[in-house]
Amino acid sequence: MTPLPSPDPQAGAAVKAADRAHVFHSWSAQELIDPLAVAGAEGSYFWDYDGNRYLDFASGLVFTNIGYQHPKVVAAIQEQAGHLATFAPAFAVEARSEAARLIAERTPGDLDKIFFTNGGAEAVENAIRMARVHTGRPKVLSAYRSYHGGTTTAINVTGDPRRWANDSGAAGAVHFWTPFLYRSPFYSADEAEECARALEHLESTVRFEGPGTIAAVILETIPGTAGIMPPPPGYLAGVREICDRHGIVFILDEVMAGFGRTGKWFATEHFDVVPDLLTFAKGVNSGYVPLGGVAISGAIAETFAKRPFPGGLTYSGHPLACAAAVATIEVMAEEGTVEHAARIGESVLGPGLRELAERHPSVGEVRGMGAFWALELVRDRETREPLVPYNAKGEENAPMAAFAAECRKNGLWPFVNMNRTHAVPPCNVSEAEAEQGLAALDAALATADEHTTAA
Amino acid sequence: MTPLPSPDPQAGAAVKAADRAHVFHSWSAQELIDPLAVAGAEGSYFWDYDGNRYLDFASGLVFTNIGYQHPKVVAAIQEQAGHLATFAPAFAVEARSEAARLIAERTPGDLDKIFFTNGGAEAVENAIRMARVHTGRPKVLSAYRSYHGGTTTAINVTGDPRRWANDSGAAGAVHFWTPFLYRSPFYSADEAEECARALEHLESTVRFEGPGTIAAVILETIPGTAGIMPPPPGYLAGVREICDRHGIVFILDEVMAGFGRTGKWFATEHFDVVPDLLTFAKGVNSGYVPLGGVAISGAIAETFAKRPFPGGLTYSGHPLACAAAVATIEVMAEEGTVEHAARIGESVLGPGLRELAERHPSVGEVRGMGAFWALELVRDRETREPLVPYNAKGEENAPMAAFAAECRKNGLWPFVNMNRTHAVPPCNVSEAEAEQGLAALDAALATADEHTTAA
Ligand SMILES: Cc1ncc(COP(=O)(O)O)c(C=O)c1O
Ligand SMILES: Cc1ncc(COP(=O)(O)O)c(C=O)c1O
Repeated sequence: MTPLPSPDPQAGAAVKAADRAHVFHSWSAQELIDPLAVAGAEGSYFWDYDGNRYLDFASGLVFTNIGYQHPKVVAAIQEQAGHLATFAPAFAVEARSEAARLIAERTPGDLDKIFFTNGGAEAVENAIRMARVHTGRPKVLSAYRSYHGGTTTAINVTGDPRRWANDSGAAGAVHFWTPFLYRSPFYSADEAEECARALEHLESTVRFEGPGTIAAVILETIPGTAGIMPPPPGYLAGVREICDRHGIVFILDEVMAGFGRTGKWFATEHFDVVPDLLTFAKGVNSGYVPLGGVAISGAIAETFAKRPFPGGLTYSGHPLACAAAVATIEVMAEEGTVEHAARIGESVLGPGLRELAERHPSVGEVRGMGAFWALELVRDRETREPLVPYNAKGEENAPMAAFAAECRKNGLWPFVNMNRTHAVPPCNVSEAEAEQGLAALDAALATADEHTTAA
Repeated sequence: MTPLPSPDPQAGAAVKAADRAHVFHSWSAQELIDPLAVAGAEGSYFWDYDGNRYLDFASGLVFTNIGYQHPKVVAAIQEQAGHLATFAPAFAVEARSEAARLIAERTPGDLDKIFFTNGGAEAVENAIRMARVHTGRPKVLSAYRSYHGGTTTAINVTGDPRRWANDSGAAGAVHFWTPFLYRSPFYSADEAEECARALEHLESTVRFEGPGTIAAVILETIPGTAGIMPPPPGYLAGVREICDRHGIVFILDEVMAGFGRTGKWFATEHFDVVPDLLTFAKGVNSGYVPLGGVAISGAIAETFAKRPFPGGLTYSGHPLACAAAVATIEVMAEEGTVEHAARIGESVLGPGLRELAERHPSVGEVRGMGAFWALELVRDRETREPLVPYNAKGEENAPMAAFAAECRKNGLWPFVNMNRTHAVPPCNVSEAEAEQGLAALDAALATADEHTTAA
């Protein structure tokens, strides 16, 4: 590990002061946050101005799939910047063509045309727009446990308290329940029952909403922010079948799960299902330059062959972002990052997290694969009462806040959401780093254990 | 001018082939477009693979305010890429803090907090979200002649045929008419009358929609894509007064007009009006890395001091994009780009375009300032019948297509929209380049003249 630069608290204080004076932050009460000033980052680590280094078990917001500052991707950005940093979307540009080709090569089935956006929300907006024009229908069915982004349609199809303040009640969004055996909405006894009932529930919802009114079903292949719940075998194939039967476009959102996160290029490969549209962002270039997009099936592309697609943006296929994608995909292929993620999940993270669950009564369930894991923290393993209530704030959320603080004290930057912590390090996290993360979680879970009925 | 690299048609063909196979383009019928493969760019020019160089009188999509490949901004991107290409939004990061500080220093009044997005549409989405939460009201009033972006709320408040296929009829968007003396919606005889009637029209619309239902009025300070129509003196101040009287948030969209385009840092400086929210993108970093944002007044920031702002995105305040903004703003300050734009408008583009209008019967009106000009092309100067009908397609649009083709034949890449061409070169376009552009327009206008009643 490179030695840290010498601490420079004064520089950190200046960065922090300007932030507090002028930067307005996402999803926050501006005076109730205290952003850490970050000085640098490399691989799986970042550091502040006070000499503290953190192992990033959140991959930023689950986007640095190849870690920070990968030298080959940095060099590719520098080269593209020196050659052609930007160009308008209506032209053919090498980096744009090449990124589209490399992505299309990896997306499943005939998802061979790529519409580029700046991020995940715009990808979802445009996928839904394509589905609506393609079908001529208005509604979109999505999961109560999901996150699809912050723009109007994306946040309305989201299932997460962040939707509430944005609920227009008019975006054609209809929410339904997806399989989650640990907290089954269908009172199921096992995975097979959960799958069958979840499909029955979707079929009923489609019938009662009116199949002819439904443009799309959008699902995260494996819901991310909502809790990393791999669907039971057969579920996605069942959704595919329901969509086909009713002429509904099936959109899989792989903004978080795509590009190696689950140990496959795309999570849907685990389930052998090809959606009509697949949204991506984050891992496509590890977030080094803002980029997202939609991979489009032949049938939907055909809809827009002679008829204009009614969507667009100034930076669609931004050359710098696309060059970063080309380099990232090449690096992941060369270094076997996707296979590495699968292996680290199977041999280190999975077993390690399950071992923690055995020893810590606060761990209710361990779920995931690859570099994509969730620990469900509970007060009681029998009742499965969450460590903190859904959408807890302030005092109510204290046990999770204390858990996160303890992680940071141990040099681990955790991903926390509601009553969960996610272990989502870079896909190329080393075995030693993964072990370090597990050890830090071990120590922090001790504080969570204090809030359990076992304590 | 740097000599062109030797032509390489084979490389161009490969770029084009991969584009046609895999890139899905904005706002287009995919099989009816024929994207030019671009090999490189510098300053006000770009070139293809066949040895053709074009003077870019469109600045991409009106974003390369400092031209292509400015060496200082390229160097800043390369340096930031090598130091810290990306970081999650919840942290304080030097480039992010510094970009916010430099922008806040330049925005008018107390617009001192900056919420960063990836582009213009997301900026508009979030400004409207802020207005809705701040006022607790649903509706947004916007202009029939406007463009605000492609995401759901942004496209619904847009006034442009691109809205039609996206009209949800449910986004709370209400359109009204804004001053445009040349095609006055109010049958006005002069600017003062146009201004007074336009304000009366807005006041009536507000009263009949119900002031207590209106969260925001959003206007482009000077409408861009819709035709570069500087509002008459007193109009924006009048809108400000109406908003104040009814407790409505006033949003100025400066995604296109901001950052030097009009010969001021922000177009609103021409009118001495301070909005409550100001949206920006494009010129903030000349589009070298995707970036947009909202500058926020003290009163609206206060709304989100203790209450969470219900919006956000993964790449808010992206370090690479922010570093490009810091460098761009510094370059513009050092090189006097803003003052240069004002001067080139007053001494070259304005006089030159007016001189063309005198000689070409197809030019109905010349409007603009700085590096932001529109020529309204007509069949008849008396009747003002547009050269092509509103939203013309195919054969109907042939006269404009022929005009554009003639420009390109003369080495000029024009901006064309409906019956207009816009002269919107980089803000640092040289006098000689501006003259070259005028000469190319001169030649192309001869083809437009053939479709006039004078021919
Ligand atoms: C599954 C999913 N979709 C969409 C988004 C939105 O992406 P962005 O924040 O880039 O708009 C996210 C972000 O976390 C996501 O996880
Ligand atoms: C005034 C205005 N607002 C918003 C936008 C949308 O910006 P973007 O394409 O970056 O989403 C544009 C784009 O041209 C614009 O001109």
